[in-house]
Amino acid sequence: MSEPRVLVLDTDPSPRLDRLTGHARVVRADEKGLADRLPEADALLVWDFASDAVRHAWPGPGPRPVWVHTASAGVDRLLFPELLASPTVLTNARGVFDRPIAEYVAGLVLSMAKDFDGSRTLQSRRHWLHRETEKVYGSRAIVVGSGPIGRRIGGTLTALGVDVALVGRTAREGVRASEELPALLPGADWVVCAAPLTPATTGMFDTAAFALMKPSARFINVGRGGHVVEEDLAAALRSGRLAGAALDVFTTEPLPPESPLWDLPGLVVSPHMSGDTVGWRDDLAEQFCDNFDRWRAGEPLVNVVDKRLGYVPSEAP
Amino acid sequence: MSEPRVLVLDTDPSPRLDRLTGHARVVRADEKGLADRLPEADALLVWDFASDAVRHAWPGPGPRPVWVHTASAGVDRLLFPELLASPTVLTNARGVFDRPIAEYVAGLVLSMAKDFDGSRTLQSRRHWLHRETEKVYGSRAIVVGSGPIGRRIGGTLTALGVDVALVGRTAREGVRASEELPALLPGADWVVCAAPLTPATTGMFDTAAFALMKPSARFINVGRGGHVVEEDLAAALRSGRLAGAALDVFTTEPLPPESPLWDLPGLVVSPHMSGDTVGWRDDLAEQFCDNFDRWRAGEPLVNVVDKRLGYVPSEAP
Repeated sequence: MSEPRVLVLDTDPSPRLDRLTGHARVVRADEKGLADRLPEADALLVWDFASDAVRHAWPGPGPRPVWVHTASAGVDRLLFPELLASPTVLTNARGVFDRPIAEYVAGLVLSMAKDFDGSRTLQSRRHWLHRETEKVYGSRAIVVGSGPIGRRIGGTLTALGVDVALVGRTAREGVRASEELPALLPGADWVVCAAPLTPATTGMFDTAAFALMKPSARFINVGRGGHVVEEDLAAALRSGRLAGAALDVFTTEPLPPESPLWDLPGLVVSPHMSGDTVGWRDDLAEQFCDNFDRWRAGEPLVNVVDKRLGYVPSEAP
Repeated sequence: MSEPRVLVLDTDPSPRLDRLTGHARVVRADEKGLADRLPEADALLVWDFASDAVRHAWPGPGPRPVWVHTASAGVDRLLFPELLASPTVLTNARGVFDRPIAEYVAGLVLSMAKDFDGSRTLQSRRHWLHRETEKVYGSRAIVVGSGPIGRRIGGTLTALGVDVALVGRTAREGVRASEELPALLPGADWVVCAAPLTPATTGMFDTAAFALMKPSARFINVGRGGHVVEEDLAAALRSGRLAGAALDVFTTEPLPPESPLWDLPGLVVSPHMSGDTVGWRDDLAEQFCDNFDRWRAGEPLVNVVDKRLGYVPSEAP
């Protein structure tokens, strides 16, 4: 292979890909410039995973990149018909976000159990008010999503003494099938969504699902906004049907200032950052360069997405 | 032994001690009534561990209880000369608070690392602002206090991938001696105090100690207020010498409304509740009743405090 042309879609400046110097011709494009650049790219690195620019730029004349890598765990923005039907290989950032997201979820669970938000409000009022808080040890959690992120969340909660049920598309060792979810929900103190967004999981957390949860349960979404019917969650929280929730992802991101979610009672809003620890962008760049080296060497890429499933199957390397 | 007389010091109504019915004459006293009741008590159960009433009521004529149990892990309020010099056996609530406090500390660590406070402020302003947060995995913690609470905190942080050094009075398997603390402090991202309050540990977290910590370090106190020189901590936080702190205990409790600690930058204030999970008072009552049964049966009491050391030695049952 002569020096391949790597097109990088970014809006913010993305990390330098120094390791590619001398091995690739790197061209950067923003959302507007993407369509013009696509035909001459061998590979496309999608830094801005929340953008629909690839979906919009892809259909058209001329060749298309044979490899698309997204610097994200979720690939939902790239599962459009033209890419699905093409021979282009899609890879993702599986592995980079597991531990940070697991820590984030564990922090939310502990923070909710110990009522840190209540303490903070009382502190701002200089009000000393002792309360009894909840034990996390011995509580029960369902983690929807049995990929590396879901498994790591499950492992971290298990280490805290939580009884965890991992739910995936199909049953396998240590994983319950999604058909079992309605039977599992009523027993859970914590329901965590860390699933890939696919047609099967879109809108799965709706009024029917919230109605199955205990009134004392809390729901945490670190998957994608599309997993949740936001109006249904809002109704469940407003009615006290659900004790609390934390959303790190939303159907519209950034969450618009006028959204009613910002001040919904019992809802913690954070700006899609659960996996983003200091140095994460360098880790992502490193991961892409590693895969690039494999590509150049004619070795199999890692983290190849099964485009039909919408994620990297666990059997994959 | 005929039916022993158990005197209970409480201000709030304390849990019923139904298990003692038919086995003991239970009399309750508040702080004012304590002195009059002491001479006729065989055992004293101190519910209100923050009270100095026992210290004040103890010196005087007549017999004194042969057994004092405090429904707390810390026994500092009971280490006054007359009780120390007496043959009275002192027991504490060792064991009840370990897991709750460890969860609380882990929650504080994660909450600080993930900047949940920042997210909450931004949420109240409807402001979407992505930030990079800290990994907890791979960070380093010092836990001062090698009793069951300190060890459990250490174990929980270790399970989160934190590199933990446990510091106790003397070195032993898995425990560093307190003399090593100055050498350890500069390497720590988290410094947690869960020590008993004794003459040796009083005021140990002062300007000299904070000066040894990294500017990025956070300090957490779930021990006793007296471990910290509060003015020194305030100065360290105000000057940015220390990145943050969380105090659950204070030299004066409740913390007075006029205390400058309430709105100190980077300080999380909570009302001495880190160990108090739903049902904790029942657990404490149960623990006392178990020890009462041993006492009645002529068996050795558990959780006997070494009054010279000021805590239950780890070698004890």
